[in-house]
Amino acid sequence: MITLATDFGSPYPAAMRGVIARRTDARLVDVSHDFPRQDVHTGAFWLREILPYYPPAVHLAVVDPGVGTDRAAIVVCAGESALVAPDNGLVVPAAREVSGGDDLEVFTIDEESDAVRPERADGSRPSPSSTFHGRDVFAPAAADVHEVGVDALEDLPYLSPAADYVDLEFPDPTLEGDRAEGEVLVIDDFGNAVTNVPGDVLEGYDAVAVDGERVPACETFAAVSPGDRLATVGSHGYVELDVNQGRGDDAFGLEVGDSVVLEGDLD
Amino acid sequence: MITLATDFGSPYPAAMRGVIARRTDARLVDVSHDFPRQDVHTGAFWLREILPYYPPAVHLAVVDPGVGTDRAAIVVCAGESALVAPDNGLVVPAAREVSGGDDLEVFTIDEESDAVRPERADGSRPSPSSTFHGRDVFAPAAADVHEVGVDALEDLPYLSPAADYVDLEFPDPTLEGDRAEGEVLVIDDFGNAVTNVPGDVLEGYDAVAVDGERVPACETFAAVSPGDRLATVGSHGYVELDVNQGRGDDAFGLEVGDSVVLEGDLD
Amino acid sequence: MITLATDFGSPYPAAMRGVIARRTDARLVDVSHDFPRQDVHTGAFWLREILPYYPPAVHLAVVDPGVGTDRAAIVVCAGESALVAPDNGLVVPAAREVSGGDDLEVFTIDEESDAVRPERADGSRPSPSSTFHGRDVFAPAAADVHEVGVDALEDLPYLSPAADYVDLEFPDPTLEGDRAEGEVLVIDDFGNAVTNVPGDVLEGYDAVAVDGERVPACETFAAVSPGDRLATVGSHGYVELDVNQGRGDDAFGLEVGDSVVLEGDLD
Repeated sequence: MITLATDFGSPYPAAMRGVIARRTDARLVDVSHDFPRQDVHTGAFWLREILPYYPPAVHLAVVDPGVGTDRAAIVVCAGESALVAPDNGLVVPAAREVSGGDDLEVFTIDEESDAVRPERADGSRPSPSSTFHGRDVFAPAAADVHEVGVDALEDLPYLSPAADYVDLEFPDPTLEGDRAEGEVLVIDDFGNAVTNVPGDVLEGYDAVAVDGERVPACETFAAVSPGDRLATVGSHGYVELDVNQGRGDDAFGLEVGDSVVLEGDLD
Repeated sequence: MITLATDFGSPYPAAMRGVIARRTDARLVDVSHDFPRQDVHTGAFWLREILPYYPPAVHLAVVDPGVGTDRAAIVVCAGESALVAPDNGLVVPAAREVSGGDDLEVFTIDEESDAVRPERADGSRPSPSSTFHGRDVFAPAAADVHEVGVDALEDLPYLSPAADYVDLEFPDPTLEGDRAEGEVLVIDDFGNAVTNVPGDVLEGYDAVAVDGERVPACETFAAVSPGDRLATVGSHGYVELDVNQGRGDDAFGLEVGDSVVLEGDLD
Repeated sequence: MITLATDFGSPYPAAMRGVIARRTDARLVDVSHDFPRQDVHTGAFWLREILPYYPPAVHLAVVDPGVGTDRAAIVVCAGESALVAPDNGLVVPAAREVSGGDDLEVFTIDEESDAVRPERADGSRPSPSSTFHGRDVFAPAAADVHEVGVDALEDLPYLSPAADYVDLEFPDPTLEGDRAEGEVLVIDDFGNAVTNVPGDVLEGYDAVAVDGERVPACETFAAVSPGDRLATVGSHGYVELDVNQGRGDDAFGLEVGDSVVLEGDLD
């Protein structure tokens, strides 16, 4: 199985599917092609939340503001899975989750190698473009990684062990008694503001103070009226600031990176 | 085959695909993840129109405003197919079409059962979230239903026969001579207002009165100029109020649930 | 493998997938369902750019402003692939690329044939609608073409050799020394204005004059500051007028069909 995740929208990912299908019969599963454009952190967050639910697979992910520059292209081996991506941290948090704690083994893709170039119907193999490495580098590499298998990557002539790779870590919150100071990690499509504060800080409280304002702490959206604000534990286990049938980011005035202070409220 | 239909947008359905792929090699086919949010009626309409074209399959559908409340989670057996969904009527009209008239057999999913919980790459099986049962309940159940088969559902330890289930029926129009009184069932992405009036009421007429205003009755959009209104028979067999290369809902001032009166116009 | 490309958005393509899955186990791959509505030229451009990366396949494509009129429905044989589409030129440029230069063999689909009608779960085969031939004509034909194979299309009772078909060609630019006069072929989702001017006209220049204004000529978006304009060679090999992390169409004031003059600038 090869999964695909990009910020390319439509129809560019279709060329990647074709390139892969020309090289392997592996099953293709789309993760998303609607990641926020060129936002490596948000892409990294979603991959970390989603990929651990998959069986061993080759995960191809491209959010690549540095395409065409000298940023490297890498393959990260994590347990029985491999992640193929630009070397900007995008897949590292996911790889740590998927590996089950094992060390990550990282290879660099020689993007100039003829062996990685995709073939077209007329048999030609054009030089890689400088703007679409999803098609010209990452898709063929992911297909080949799937074919040789994660334990034989040294068989691919265009892979070599990486001396180093770009890491990416999400900020930790500060927890102190019934007070948590964190930040907004991501806003989802529905406007839910996902923080980095672990959900168990809400335990035992019917309400919390969010930046000083009292907000009900609820298990479900339906516990408050449509249009009302709530704090809840999202499906990733973090505190989310939401609105039932509305947008939490607007109601709380929050953007990615904004800090939030949550305090237990016992009245 | 397992089909997926939700109102989750992107990227949440990707976690469901992973959960399923970890439990079964069944083919995955997306119906839509862009159903209008928390709109059970519109989801039910599309499922009823689309699923009868599929071969026998497990159909997973989640539009779930009551997630985390005490609404039940169910599996509906319909002929050789099974539909897995929240117990809010979402899949019942589709199930009736797919069953070919047989009685529906309905099972309740024990959402607290350990057996239904999805497994992550590290072997953990976290407690279900209160906001994402698509991933934590419905996806694993759909995978298991596919594996045991629709005739052996009693083998799944977390299923038991349902005493009752929530039904959902679409309103019938009132037909009287050359006059039909119905309502708008759904507005599609293109702005076409789909009514519950059967298409054959247009037969023999070149024009109809829609709420008193004369509108051409045509077989094709191309029969009127771009921007002009028309009444036509949509692909579901109902009268649609449309605009060629424009939005019928805006031009007719119609929303879902609005009543419409169609009268034959013989001039 | 059967690929699907339409301008139908969601959820209409789901009915097409069902119709196909009822007739064949062929793998389904989505190219896009977000082609600009009823814009045959733009659809034809993307198909020509994308399909040559696929292995031999049946390519189903529907952008069909003439649905329900007397426009024909066709199957175009191109090498080992077949393209199924309305006869409006949509797949002809792609077919020429996929065929590897061989002559195209074209068949007409008898849209009134009972044999082409999709079957529903209850065994019924309703007459084709006048607005959704994607489901009622093209999807079943594509499935059948896949099943009989591109070399035995005469076995399908509803196909007959076409006397003629609608062609579609993209305009050629005028190249003269260091001056190119072309036009905008397509605007992509990101606002990049793709011209018909071959990329090698930028070779050797650090900047070009676009309609008289100096614009940097760069290999990568990252070579200019966010928000700045650039001319680059897109992934299709043509000159694109872009903005780093912005919309080129807005910044250059360009729409599809607008002419552009590019001149080498040697200062």
